Amino acid sequence: MSDTKTRSRRNGVDTEALFATLDAVKAQPEIARFQFRASNRWVSGTHNRGVINGYYGAGQEHTRPADFAFDADHPPVLVGADNGPTPAEHLLHALAACITSGLANIAAARGIDLEEVSSTVQGDINLLGILGLDPEVRNGFEAIRVVVHVKGDAEAEKLAALVDQSRNRSAVYDVITNGVPVSINVTTA
Amino acid sequence: MSDTKTRSRRNGVDTEALFATLDAVKAQPEIARFQFRASNRWVSGTHNRGVINGYYGAGQEHTRPADFAFDADHPPVLVGADNGPTPAEHLLHALAACITSGLANIAAARGIDLEEVSSTVQGDINLLGILGLDPEVRNGFEAIRVVVHVKGDAEAEKLAALVDQSRNRSAVYDVITNGVPVSINVTTA
Repeated sequence: MSDTKTRSRRNGVDTEALFATLDAVKAQPEIARFQFRASNRWVSGTHNRGVINGYYGAGQEHTRPADFAFDADHPPVLVGADNGPTPAEHLLHALAACITSGLANIAAARGIDLEEVSSTVQGDINLLGILGLDPEVRNGFEAIRVVVHVKGDAEAEKLAALVDQSRNRSAVYDVITNGVPVSINVTTA
Repeated sequence: MSDTKTRSRRNGVDTEALFATLDAVKAQPEIARFQFRASNRWVSGTHNRGVINGYYGAGQEHTRPADFAFDADHPPVLVGADNGPTPAEHLLHALAACITSGLANIAAARGIDLEEVSSTVQGDINLLGILGLDPEVRNGFEAIRVVVHVKGDAEAEKLAALVDQSRNRSAVYDVITNGVPVSINVTTA
């Protein structure tokens, strides 16, 4: 009762719930199977809108109270109208978000109070690839660099170790660095 | 003058600007070097907010009129509060958006009027990986499936070929299927 942070929330993380979740999954590993989803609808030109809501996990379907909706577009210099970030920028955002979400959980589990976590991501891309002008140039990013700034009540080494562990357990980092098989099917009826 | 669609916009795409852009890049390939960016700031627990604005490309820095901001979080079943989609869902959205943006450009270039483009993306993930409970299970998606529905004034085969070509020229599809080197640095000062 003396340490309310330990008993309730640290960094906004309900650590008891976090450890209870780990125990539940250890006891019943099949509840760890999740399926996440997104849908997308073309608006006009390079502008389209994605919607995210339902997912499967912990043995059942889940629906959020409201849809999350996100626009994507190309900028004018790429013949779009800036109605949203480019899809490639959405991907960089996903990477930064994954590192940060994991980091807060790991810090809570290690008893480290965070003051600030901020990051920047840069991705270098040569559009000769996607424009079909040079077969030697890949379509996607050639390199991605992340800089994470962490402040909290621990030594620099321990704060840096939070980032290492977050990277080691990041779903998006794994996908982006190691690749995943993607099937694409088409219906036209 | 007789075919205003060809001379101006098809599918909302300024095809003259599209071809002019291709010609400009052919004449000066160095303008194809872009750098996209995202920043992220931790809010509380697994909740964080990404901001996207400036990028470098076509030989100069660009700033949008306003920032794009996107929340990410985990759902309650993963000890979050659903303040936004999970980072992994943001990644699925980026993939669908990239296929769709490219498809509209390709259809315009091929003279095909689109009526509808919609897609769904599913990603299977076993959380035993990110929870650190099974070293044999990867952190990221094991498989991603996209279904694209295309309606337009062309035969089914030609509509399906639009999806093929969009995949063949998709930055995000390339990153997700082939992987990219990602460096992560930390500052704690």
